[in-house]
Amino acid sequence: MRVTILGANGFIGRKIATQLARSGLPGGGKPESLILFDLVTPPVPEASFRVQAISGDLAELPPQAIPPGTDLVFHLAAVVSAQAEADYELGRRVNLRGTDAVIDACRRLAHPPRLVFTSSVATYSGGQNAVLDDDARQIPANTYGAQKAAAELIVGDASRRGFLDAVSIRLPTIVVRPGSPNRAASSFVSSIVREPLLDLEAELPVANDFAIWIASPRRAVDWLLHAAVMDTTPMGLDRGINPPGLSVTVAHLLQALDQVRPGASSLVRRRPDPAISAIVAHWPAAFDTVRAKTFGFASHEPLVELVRAFLEDDLEATKRERGL
Amino acid sequence: MRVTILGANGFIGRKIATQLARSGLPGGGKPESLILFDLVTPPVPEASFRVQAISGDLAELPPQAIPPGTDLVFHLAAVVSAQAEADYELGRRVNLRGTDAVIDACRRLAHPPRLVFTSSVATYSGGQNAVLDDDARQIPANTYGAQKAAAELIVGDASRRGFLDAVSIRLPTIVVRPGSPNRAASSFVSSIVREPLLDLEAELPVANDFAIWIASPRRAVDWLLHAAVMDTTPMGLDRGINPPGLSVTVAHLLQALDQVRPGASSLVRRRPDPAISAIVAHWPAAFDTVRAKTFGFASHEPLVELVRAFLEDDLEATKRERGL
Repeated sequence: MRVTILGANGFIGRKIATQLARSGLPGGGKPESLILFDLVTPPVPEASFRVQAISGDLAELPPQAIPPGTDLVFHLAAVVSAQAEADYELGRRVNLRGTDAVIDACRRLAHPPRLVFTSSVATYSGGQNAVLDDDARQIPANTYGAQKAAAELIVGDASRRGFLDAVSIRLPTIVVRPGSPNRAASSFVSSIVREPLLDLEAELPVANDFAIWIASPRRAVDWLLHAAVMDTTPMGLDRGINPPGLSVTVAHLLQALDQVRPGASSLVRRRPDPAISAIVAHWPAAFDTVRAKTFGFASHEPLVELVRAFLEDDLEATKRERGL
Repeated sequence: MRVTILGANGFIGRKIATQLARSGLPGGGKPESLILFDLVTPPVPEASFRVQAISGDLAELPPQAIPPGTDLVFHLAAVVSAQAEADYELGRRVNLRGTDAVIDACRRLAHPPRLVFTSSVATYSGGQNAVLDDDARQIPANTYGAQKAAAELIVGDASRRGFLDAVSIRLPTIVVRPGSPNRAASSFVSSIVREPLLDLEAELPVANDFAIWIASPRRAVDWLLHAAVMDTTPMGLDRGINPPGLSVTVAHLLQALDQVRPGASSLVRRRPDPAISAIVAHWPAAFDTVRAKTFGFASHEPLVELVRAFLEDDLEATKRERGL
């Protein structure tokens, strides 16, 4: 099986590459080659098969990124929320034109490849009290979400036409993100767990009862790999999946943090931020994910496991990266 | 008020231009200038204000199509269903890139103009037994519908950002279309009324109880003009409207035809066509349009009025055009 990861330098892309190199695909399939594509040349994991790293612009996708014989494409490349809001043209170029370039590359192949497309909870609005079912309408409240929802429609149609065979996974907010706090409105959700585990303070801009729909990096990687091998026939025209994330409050997160490292939550400083609160107030905090379970997507592990997984998988790398 | 019609050479575009020239906008507003844009130079109606016709490619929209000071843009330009299915690149170029070009032209203006965007019932699937409410999800079963639904998301986001102020009207199948039968799967719905009124035979590819969601050209024009002047503030993030069309069966259409011209339905030949039936089977036949009524969109006139309107508005022009 010939595999390409677009956006392979992001932290989810790197984890998928590592997992493919280490364990192959769910069900025992093994890549015979792996191409890693990103704006910046991605790191190449050690593997028993050929791995090639390519850098370039997604909207001008070079033919060698999805060469003849490609069976599977992970399309994780995106300009995410804060940046798509700040730079409209860049968001459109990567999130829409880039996805068209991926479709065109897939069309040129003799056989339609599986396309695993990362969409987002940001394609929805509805706020704190919404519980969205699988038939909920996507009414985005930000440019990133609008572009992702539009791209879902376009890859769904490309599937119907037989250009490719898409599964769009609408990822929840990923917690705990490794690395540093950033300017994304969602940054605090990871920070309030990650920073105390690094013995650093973190700022909490919302109230303790603020609820959010999250998933661990481990679970996100598992879902994307499952989407790579699942039977898509029963999906029909609807190629989108809301995977079974966790609906948690800030209080739940801090409780799980203290369970793993007693007293750690005392490093979290309450600093209410009306600007951040206004943005995150649109996000739906809960989903009823019947369809994902029908299609075999794994349930989420308990919250305390999500905190422990950061220590096991990402703490050391994060310390190195930040010189701690 | 400075007005532009994009796609002004289509039959709805022409009717809007004529109505603006004759009666102005609902509520008494009068255009001070009108620009008509299409691939082929549109006809210029007589008017008491300046009307200018421009031809060009929507995806390379010339700046003079939406000049400084434009208050209102009707965006009717599209590559429709059969053509978007046959020529994927052309559909994408006009329906997606073209809509981006419209957004970019609106962004350059000092004040965001009202954008009346024609979307379509083709953005939905669900079939004969579906009754879709205002919160129904758009799961298109054709490329035209997917591109229109994606464009709705993009103009909705552009509204949120303040680039423009959009209302997307999801037009039902328009009946009676003037002119000639064409290769669209929906062509028969107009043909079985129009052709007998021209003393010509028409072919009916589906059963008598086939149901469809329709609107008259008069009502479509009224809705688009209402969308041009309505208060959009209460719409919030959701800029789409399912207008109050009519859910009718083939039997209803033929009954109305006979009411206007007794015996005319004897010119309709039953010729079952499995290919056409397979396409139209996806189309939803009924909507519950509460939101449109709340926003003041006029209810549809009775079916028999729709047949009479063709005689009054379009019979002579259709005869001339077809040399009958």
